Amino acid sequence: MSHTIVIFGASGDLTTRKLIPALYRLWVKRRLPADTKVLGVSRTEFSHDAWRKSLSESTAKFAGKDFDEQEWQSFAKSVFYMQGDIGKSEDFQRLSDVLDEIEQGSEGTRVFYLSTTPRLYATAVANLGAAGLADESNGPRRIVIEKPFGYDAATARQLNDDLHQVFAENQVYRIDHYLGKETVQNLFVLRFANSIFEPIWNRQYVDHVQITVAEELAVGRRGDYYDTSGILRDMFQNHLLQLMMITAMEAPARMSADLIRDEKAKVLQSVRPITAEMVKQDTIRGQYEGYRQEKGVATDSQTATFAALKLHVDNWRWSNVPFYLRSGKALSCRTTQIVIQFREPPQPLFSDQSSQSPGANRLVIQVQPAEGIQLHFHTKVPDAGMNLRMTDLDFSFQREFSFALPDAYQRLLLDVLNGDASLFARSDEVELSWDIIDPVIEAWKNQTEPNLDIYPPALWGPAESMQWMEEQGREWFDVCPLIT
Amino acid sequence: MSHTIVIFGASGDLTTRKLIPALYRLWVKRRLPADTKVLGVSRTEFSHDAWRKSLSESTAKFAGKDFDEQEWQSFAKSVFYMQGDIGKSEDFQRLSDVLDEIEQGSEGTRVFYLSTTPRLYATAVANLGAAGLADESNGPRRIVIEKPFGYDAATARQLNDDLHQVFAENQVYRIDHYLGKETVQNLFVLRFANSIFEPIWNRQYVDHVQITVAEELAVGRRGDYYDTSGILRDMFQNHLLQLMMITAMEAPARMSADLIRDEKAKVLQSVRPITAEMVKQDTIRGQYEGYRQEKGVATDSQTATFAALKLHVDNWRWSNVPFYLRSGKALSCRTTQIVIQFREPPQPLFSDQSSQSPGANRLVIQVQPAEGIQLHFHTKVPDAGMNLRMTDLDFSFQREFSFALPDAYQRLLLDVLNGDASLFARSDEVELSWDIIDPVIEAWKNQTEPNLDIYPPALWGPAESMQWMEEQGREWFDVCPLIT
Repeated sequence: MSHTIVIFGASGDLTTRKLIPALYRLWVKRRLPADTKVLGVSRTEFSHDAWRKSLSESTAKFAGKDFDEQEWQSFAKSVFYMQGDIGKSEDFQRLSDVLDEIEQGSEGTRVFYLSTTPRLYATAVANLGAAGLADESNGPRRIVIEKPFGYDAATARQLNDDLHQVFAENQVYRIDHYLGKETVQNLFVLRFANSIFEPIWNRQYVDHVQITVAEELAVGRRGDYYDTSGILRDMFQNHLLQLMMITAMEAPARMSADLIRDEKAKVLQSVRPITAEMVKQDTIRGQYEGYRQEKGVATDSQTATFAALKLHVDNWRWSNVPFYLRSGKALSCRTTQIVIQFREPPQPLFSDQSSQSPGANRLVIQVQPAEGIQLHFHTKVPDAGMNLRMTDLDFSFQREFSFALPDAYQRLLLDVLNGDASLFARSDEVELSWDIIDPVIEAWKNQTEPNLDIYPPALWGPAESMQWMEEQGREWFDVCPLIT
Repeated sequence: MSHTIVIFGASGDLTTRKLIPALYRLWVKRRLPADTKVLGVSRTEFSHDAWRKSLSESTAKFAGKDFDEQEWQSFAKSVFYMQGDIGKSEDFQRLSDVLDEIEQGSEGTRVFYLSTTPRLYATAVANLGAAGLADESNGPRRIVIEKPFGYDAATARQLNDDLHQVFAENQVYRIDHYLGKETVQNLFVLRFANSIFEPIWNRQYVDHVQITVAEELAVGRRGDYYDTSGILRDMFQNHLLQLMMITAMEAPARMSADLIRDEKAKVLQSVRPITAEMVKQDTIRGQYEGYRQEKGVATDSQTATFAALKLHVDNWRWSNVPFYLRSGKALSCRTTQIVIQFREPPQPLFSDQSSQSPGANRLVIQVQPAEGIQLHFHTKVPDAGMNLRMTDLDFSFQREFSFALPDAYQRLLLDVLNGDASLFARSDEVELSWDIIDPVIEAWKNQTEPNLDIYPPALWGPAESMQWMEEQGREWFDVCPLIT
């Protein structure tokens, strides 16, 4: 039983930075399934050895002190290269031969990883189909598709249709590396392996939920791509909605891919659509100062680099509990966090509680970079009287587990090889996500309100965003994580 | 407006170790009410200055680095002494004159602190009454009574009757220094200033509650007293039941002494009496190896130095949630802790949860000596698979508040001076406590079962105690606090 990963876009950034280092690390940990081979495909001309050499250098760089020359040599024996063009169907016939050759006739699993520009996804899929490479008679055939999955609802549906012409849904792995992060997976455990959080995880006790993905960096060299995409496509349709689904979902009957994804999809099915009339009230958009001077960006660009959405999940658990989703570039710091903001106690018992205390209980889940959990609660300040202070129960993954947290790609690549799609997006999730995001993009294009607020870099986005929360009697949790 | 504290038993241990250092510290912090004076009374002959000198030495010792000679000198000006005998009514008339003299005619509050042997309580009270010292025409008159309050239900009722002949209930302050501990007061805040604990603080989510007061020390020089008292009188009737009341009570309408104590009393009113038939099943008694060789202890003593009780609070909140109360001498370490043991999630979702994981969520409130709170919960072990680990969210008073926690007596003395009885036991609480403890003492005296188990020192009591819990599918939380 062999396992072969074919990486299209083998000379690209993702391959050298993430995929090969992740596979190499899995190899070092002896986690790769027996007889795993890697075949890189791209238009560049390489011999097997030339590619290995090139990867050896890049992996040494990106794997840092985990890199061991001897381990690498031994891993590299399973690494192969084939020059090929996704546009040429004959190259897929050749690919089929090369695969047979390196697998030496042993039947097994093949994973096709599309690490290319999204423009080529449909062609790659069609050509894989034409060459018979999706056929599972001789073992599982899986396809991994990187984000962005579509440019809007229509193109996402088209891509799903194209995929389903060739692959069954259970062969398709739409990757969102956020789902491979330990803290995101831990959300399942936090919620469903503990009995103390679930009883208060609902409209009766939660005032609202905040999900923030803040980036410190500006667009950098990606201005070209970014200016046609914008923050909603780049961050909300995938990462933010994924985090929201896992935060809001019901417990699945079992931890199996389809049952989990059924529950996730149900969350999106319950999201109240943001109509054109609601856009002014329920969204904030911003653009950082200096964005229009970035390389590749139109000088009159209306593209949002910051957005905040107020979403309602209209179901029994979450009715009237807003989910605030927020993301932006050029913010104060890099942090991804989920904040469950609980309500105040129904009755203040301590006279100074309403005046002095800074709000109600809060559970903060730090997804990255300082992975951990903080439970903010009131405690008595020692000494006379009954003065309260908000303090926190703190848990840090790094303190608890002395080893470095594994990169998301290690987890996800292993899951693909083992055929576990739990942490990958299903076609309906992706389409439903676009159905939520699309109307906002559309309204922003056609309406002047809300304003595109220009915000100074290195803060938490436009002042309008804070003001908007304040008007709702709420406050963003704007705290940069302490990295220890 | 003057404030005068009269300490009967002025030459005793409690006065020098606790009361005077606490008053001195309050003085240093400028917390004592205006014009506070201290008058020591005991049979020993002292001049004012001789007593001040003696206290100066003992306070320097017990206040440690907080002691400052200049502050002491300034505090000592308000410290007086009177030789007097509680048995002599004429000495109380003299006391009245001395008080008038040192107060120089200013009207104000007088606090009578009985820091004497309990045998003298009734006499002291009667003589205070006869001398008109309980009369509040010229200002509040309060009496503080140290534990033990009675020897059983009958004597406690008698003492209450004696008190009420002279003092109204609102003049009486029955002190249990446990209630002055910061972590105990923080229980109110934890429960009622936060919205996240109260919803799960009930029979639906809590499996059982453990309250442990473990002492590392043996009886030492107190063998004489201890052998006629035993662990139930010494620890359960007061400290353990107090902790249980605060853990189990409903939210009071307001934080006022009587409303709080109404709720506390209701807890005891709901406790199912332990009948003679239940004693074997619901109690464990033990005696540490070597106890009978202690000075003052009978060589065939049947006195328990360890006990565990299983109490049921038969009300809507706690029906079927046992409260396990446990205390002992010569145990593994000194620790007082309250453990809220939550139930398992209704449905295990992670295959290894039932096999690998060490039980359900737990909230541990460390009352002393390492004051803090730990919330034990499951988290995912980073890396492949869904392996769980029990870990904890941790809060330490010492880490959070860099200053030393104030001694319980500071708090309580200040409350008496200010007339706040919230943290003192009311007559009904004390009587109800004895009503719970008495039948167990009685049954132990008359029955051979449960056995008096002899246990080796420096563990967690008799093996029978662990076995008893095991038979009920439960486990003691036997963890010595980490003092940082």
